[in-house]
Amino acid sequence: MAQLVPVSDPDDPRLADYVRLRDVNLRKSLEAEHGLFIAEGEKVIRRAVRTGHAPRSFLMARRRVEPLADLLDTVDAPVYVADDATVEAVAGFQVHRGALASVHRLPLPDVAEAVAGARRILVLEDLVDHANVGSIFRCAAALGIEAVVLSPRCADPLYRRSIKVSMGAVFAVPYARMTDWRGGLGTLREAGFALLALTPDQSAVPLDQAKVDDRAALMLGSEGDGLSSRWLEEADQRVCIPMSPAAMANGVDSLNVVAAAAIACHGLVHA
Amino acid sequence: MAQLVPVSDPDDPRLADYVRLRDVNLRKSLEAEHGLFIAEGEKVIRRAVRTGHAPRSFLMARRRVEPLADLLDTVDAPVYVADDATVEAVAGFQVHRGALASVHRLPLPDVAEAVAGARRILVLEDLVDHANVGSIFRCAAALGIEAVVLSPRCADPLYRRSIKVSMGAVFAVPYARMTDWRGGLGTLREAGFALLALTPDQSAVPLDQAKVDDRAALMLGSEGDGLSSRWLEEADQRVCIPMSPAAMANGVDSLNVVAAAAIACHGLVHA
Repeated sequence: MAQLVPVSDPDDPRLADYVRLRDVNLRKSLEAEHGLFIAEGEKVIRRAVRTGHAPRSFLMARRRVEPLADLLDTVDAPVYVADDATVEAVAGFQVHRGALASVHRLPLPDVAEAVAGARRILVLEDLVDHANVGSIFRCAAALGIEAVVLSPRCADPLYRRSIKVSMGAVFAVPYARMTDWRGGLGTLREAGFALLALTPDQSAVPLDQAKVDDRAALMLGSEGDGLSSRWLEEADQRVCIPMSPAAMANGVDSLNVVAAAAIACHGLVHA
Repeated sequence: MAQLVPVSDPDDPRLADYVRLRDVNLRKSLEAEHGLFIAEGEKVIRRAVRTGHAPRSFLMARRRVEPLADLLDTVDAPVYVADDATVEAVAGFQVHRGALASVHRLPLPDVAEAVAGARRILVLEDLVDHANVGSIFRCAAALGIEAVVLSPRCADPLYRRSIKVSMGAVFAVPYARMTDWRGGLGTLREAGFALLALTPDQSAVPLDQAKVDDRAALMLGSEGDGLSSRWLEEADQRVCIPMSPAAMANGVDSLNVVAAAAIACHGLVHA
């Protein structure tokens, strides 16, 4: 059974895992150095533990302990119990869902391992927005995408906000991060994946007319600039989602990356 | 030419249109009473004016005037010029895009007018999140949905955040609001629309096997509860987006409403 430890000092060093959760730069280095991530809310904490992630500690208000008692019974980590004001003072914002866990990261597989056995995968190039990454994982999981490969600079799926927006889907879809942006797509091609680059360019092949082989990787680019020209050139096919002619004339001719990813994942899985 | 009026007092009554832009309740009543909405950022302001909306006034930092000079030349409304701190003090947050306009609302068409001539429309029931409404309008415009019908309690597409997230697509797609939730779908049926209810229920007809007639209305429900049972029963067909069996087993078996709307709009337009 996890041990309940009352705390009241926001500067208590035992709470160092939880400081300033909205300070992206601080969190990046803190979480990398300690190999941890933060799970927020009962549902996400349960999903993290169920998928084999070991908690380092918990931080929550007293009233949040009981609903998680069955889980806390099974883990060996301190449960820091504090009032809402203390939690807010540590985390730097009002934690609505009330329960936080600091969780050990598992070693990521390499790209070849993550995609072994998968037929339909996503490759994300340099997405910078954590909510977008989380939303795309949620789509990927729900629609049946079997693995996700991240470019070296893509935002972290285990950042608190990514996890939350994904509803825990980041724990359900295997993923890996390329170490080499230049050569990274080569690994996928060697594994037999056809590389489909999604582009807003309407001269590309409409998604539902794309030739999709046994194994296919759909490449999605960053929010502002889309895929890099290098990756566009390396693709086997450039595919697009057809835009309405009226929209093109009106200048409202683009989808956000999550909407585009949803349509493309659905199309890819049913191709 | 619009007249430049320097202002420096956040309590200046001439700036009353712009107060506390993030206070949803205040803004709802203020904007309804005065028949206005707020456009934020050069691109959105241009799109609003281009689609026939008359500005009441503008509020911006001095450096934002020049890029909009051509537009300001053509309108007859005061341009209040203030420093960033004053704008922030009025609006209640730091206005990154720097230019605000208070704009007269146009009278909304009634439902029959809004859908006249359209073959593919959306019907939104009680969506409460302004960003979701904006995102769905963006999808609708880009993919070729020709009109949107809102339930009486659906969030306002002309709320500042809806407009911003839609990238101005709320000005490009005709929409109307039902006055009567109970009888509202009757108007659409009389106009010859087949009513398709999107549901997560996997026993419904998969979207790409739906029978879609000449005129079709896709109904989307609210973020949490989906469509009301009354509307589900009134539909001609219940349709679903097929979820991956693995996702169902893992409990990561749902899409957010924007992702679902994107897939469904794409499917409907290409059916």
